[in-house]
Amino acid sequence: MPSIGYLGPPGTFTQEALEANLSENFGTSVPYGTVPEVLLAVEAGEVKSGFVPIENSIEGSVNVTLDTLAFETQIYIEREIVHPIRHRLVAKPGVSEEEIKEIVSHPHATAQCRRFLTRNFPKVPLVAANSTAEAAKTVSGMDEPAAAVTTEIAASLYDLVVLERDIEDYPSNRTRFIVVGKERPPPTGADKTSMACFIRENRPGSLLEILTEFASRGINLTKIESRPTKKVLGEYYFFIDIDGHVEDEAVKDALGSLMGKLREIKLLGSYPAAPPLG
Amino acid sequence: MPSIGYLGPPGTFTQEALEANLSENFGTSVPYGTVPEVLLAVEAGEVKSGFVPIENSIEGSVNVTLDTLAFETQIYIEREIVHPIRHRLVAKPGVSEEEIKEIVSHPHATAQCRRFLTRNFPKVPLVAANSTAEAAKTVSGMDEPAAAVTTEIAASLYDLVVLERDIEDYPSNRTRFIVVGKERPPPTGADKTSMACFIRENRPGSLLEILTEFASRGINLTKIESRPTKKVLGEYYFFIDIDGHVEDEAVKDALGSLMGKLREIKLLGSYPAAPPLG
Repeated sequence: MPSIGYLGPPGTFTQEALEANLSENFGTSVPYGTVPEVLLAVEAGEVKSGFVPIENSIEGSVNVTLDTLAFETQIYIEREIVHPIRHRLVAKPGVSEEEIKEIVSHPHATAQCRRFLTRNFPKVPLVAANSTAEAAKTVSGMDEPAAAVTTEIAASLYDLVVLERDIEDYPSNRTRFIVVGKERPPPTGADKTSMACFIRENRPGSLLEILTEFASRGINLTKIESRPTKKVLGEYYFFIDIDGHVEDEAVKDALGSLMGKLREIKLLGSYPAAPPLG
Repeated sequence: MPSIGYLGPPGTFTQEALEANLSENFGTSVPYGTVPEVLLAVEAGEVKSGFVPIENSIEGSVNVTLDTLAFETQIYIEREIVHPIRHRLVAKPGVSEEEIKEIVSHPHATAQCRRFLTRNFPKVPLVAANSTAEAAKTVSGMDEPAAAVTTEIAASLYDLVVLERDIEDYPSNRTRFIVVGKERPPPTGADKTSMACFIRENRPGSLLEILTEFASRGINLTKIESRPTKKVLGEYYFFIDIDGHVEDEAVKDALGSLMGKLREIKLLGSYPAAPPLG
């Protein structure tokens, strides 16, 4: 079975989403330290596929994923997965909520559970960890009673028990992950196409020209984001998702027209569409 | 002198940017725990102005700032400030680099200095903190030799000395901060206007209609981002920045035309433009 690289360490939401959605399709799964390391490992052929977050419903786009795909690699998005982000409050067996002396987690995770923590643990200090998985590991090694805000998978990895489930302030908190590789999946009839559009100069109407090509063919835009190119001050590229597959006539036709008008258009993949994040 | 609320704690880049750019304009500066708390304090009149990050050149938009302005408050952006993010490696006086047993910082800060830390401290564990300021405070209270990745201002706040300057991997790392309040500054001739555009339905051409109003009047777009409304699944709004002031004839005219076409258009402010982030 083929291998898949993912954003580690083991026990975070990325591994949870991978196990929940893709475990039957892959043999070895290999944790990497950063998103670019995962994507570059796919490009180098170290692993057949990669699995990284691209967008969270609260935090927004994972820009390092957008920028690495746009500038540093020549690989494709083959699939997208939308996974709910459900935080657990966990502790060592036998520890009760009343005893808890500190709560450990990644600053983003504690921020996402702020209301729950303020209401139930108003005086307990929040201690930072580098990941939700590291938080579970830290708590499992502590002598004094402590809790971690972490994933179900990290709780079982470090023999911790779940004290409270679904403690996040926004129950609609979800993350969109992508599977990347070197293949271009065939059309399924319900696909999405992602691309990076580099315009010739930053002038009125440049984005309009791009959107006209899609709108005039009835192609719906599902995401657009302007991102600095980091090369020239004030120069932007557009990260765009549209409904449809690059082999659909309308999409093919629109992209063909755009080729002549843009400085560069980089296809980042056509793949089956998951439900929207919003 | 009027008061200003800012995203605390004291000693982070937000306070550094505030002190460097605005200290002569404000009397008391009041730290708050979150971006919404700052913005709501301005709306409630607890402080006259607020100061929060809105976009970082590497991390991208601060979505909580965009969403709070779009959905929860009726206040205006009065000014923008672009401030460089320069990380310092700091320690207690007398500690040398060779002795350092651990390096403390917010996970984003250590991620932004990854190359420097890997090259110079390959075996030193990275310990997480809830903010760059908390990292400095932690190191100032430690007995064993440790270092923090933090701001110049936190180093002096906690009597630490700077061992290395500008250790970030991307020297172009900058954050755009905004001053918010209840006033609408007059045109200066080099202004920007920010708005949130809510469309009636997600259909091909809806964004095109918006952009046509600007492009046909020669108005340049400097930022666009689609964001979920969090109310209806798959429903988006657009956060848009354009060149020009709402009192400019062309801008006024474009916004007037859009009023009739959109479900809602919320003006978030016209203010003097700072240099672009990109």
